[in-house]
Amino acid sequence: MQRYFIPKENWQDNQVIITDDDYHHVVNVMRKQEGNQIICCNPNGQAFYCEINSINEKQVVCNVLEELEENNELPIHVTIAHGLPKGDKLDLIVQKSTELGMGDFVPLQMDRSIVKWDHKKEQKKLLRLKKIAKEASEQSHRSRIPAIQGKQTIHTLLQNQEFDMCLVASEYLTKDQSSQSSFRQAIDKISPGQKILLIIGPEGGLSEEELSFLHEQGCLPIRLGARILRTETAPLYALSALSFYFEEWRCEV
Amino acid sequence: MQRYFIPKENWQDNQVIITDDDYHHVVNVMRKQEGNQIICCNPNGQAFYCEINSINEKQVVCNVLEELEENNELPIHVTIAHGLPKGDKLDLIVQKSTELGMGDFVPLQMDRSIVKWDHKKEQKKLLRLKKIAKEASEQSHRSRIPAIQGKQTIHTLLQNQEFDMCLVASEYLTKDQSSQSSFRQAIDKISPGQKILLIIGPEGGLSEEELSFLHEQGCLPIRLGARILRTETAPLYALSALSFYFEEWRCEV
Repeated sequence: MQRYFIPKENWQDNQVIITDDDYHHVVNVMRKQEGNQIICCNPNGQAFYCEINSINEKQVVCNVLEELEENNELPIHVTIAHGLPKGDKLDLIVQKSTELGMGDFVPLQMDRSIVKWDHKKEQKKLLRLKKIAKEASEQSHRSRIPAIQGKQTIHTLLQNQEFDMCLVASEYLTKDQSSQSSFRQAIDKISPGQKILLIIGPEGGLSEEELSFLHEQGCLPIRLGARILRTETAPLYALSALSFYFEEWRCEV
Repeated sequence: MQRYFIPKENWQDNQVIITDDDYHHVVNVMRKQEGNQIICCNPNGQAFYCEINSINEKQVVCNVLEELEENNELPIHVTIAHGLPKGDKLDLIVQKSTELGMGDFVPLQMDRSIVKWDHKKEQKKLLRLKKIAKEASEQSHRSRIPAIQGKQTIHTLLQNQEFDMCLVASEYLTKDQSSQSSFRQAIDKISPGQKILLIIGPEGGLSEEELSFLHEQGCLPIRLGARILRTETAPLYALSALSFYFEEWRCEV
């Protein structure tokens, strides 16, 4: 059943009001009518079966029926902080990472990012990434949309936000160095409910200064398999591995 | 160091001859000169340091120096057989799956594939996918290129090729059904060196007939995390999880 993420102010008593793009999708794309059912999610991550009560020129009004008993969210909160890559790669990163359970996303201005975002470009990009995250959340049956944060540096990010563990994906970790730390050792220390930060460099990787700052901050460098991954593949590997470990491996069989 | 996959006939005694696209890349893109070193891989999956001996108008001739002691290949051979999806999605699937260690790739004509390949289209597509697999292998430092097989159906595939285990990614496996079989249970039975087939449906999933045929053939349905993945995300999840399990989890720490 199609699901929609409805902002807080549109939930009133036992009704939900659907407007704007979602209105267009319900009425013109899905061609829903009075009496049909859809799923509406609120910003708290709850999902409800809803029945369409009335449709006018600007609003679909639904009655809330009952809450879905589902939990499709990754049991740990993973913030992906990604050095600005070239071209449209962030679109792919945000879409796929949302499907794979990302908690939220931070675009990072890093030393080796060739792309620079000025204020105007940032606003345009964030709007686009938020739309991609919303659509991917709907499509993948998530109960919350990952937040897309504004552009930051690793310094401001680590000063202003707290995490239980910080990991950095570094292509310079070879097999020989895996005894120093490994994704396995890191993952073994993570418990459900914790907040993890995963930092990924742009195409050129991290600078010496960035690596040493992250080292000082206690971030653990991890290896993501034996091959060199393109920058946009790294978050997909990490999230898939975390999902496999927490949702398929540890789950009751 | 840049690496190139050189066909068998270009290895002669202790020399390697580089021609065509690779010649262009060595000479015009990388601007290599006599005395410079590159890495050349042979079709057996061996990689060698090579020194450029001479460059003429059509050939780069290299002396083979010594074999690299490396093993970047996933310890199991994973064949990804993917129902023909819409648009250019196979490009992304083959590029990313190559980075993530795919063994080889089979495009599947499936019941719910909207796209149809006639002979001419197939030849064009296969040529493009082979080029993508070669470039991704070079970029990700693999020692072999995944083979791109011709279009097949699940019937011809399972009649003509043998696998130690066949898995099918099905979006209809919910948590409630996970007791029937799970990716964990499947992965637990796989040993290094084995050949695994992973079948993934197109956008509309697998038909009832296909699912029941695969069931008869002993294919195990698996779930890839708690969310609904787009068709092109499924092989990336599965390969990342297999890499994590065999290269990061089981590895000596």
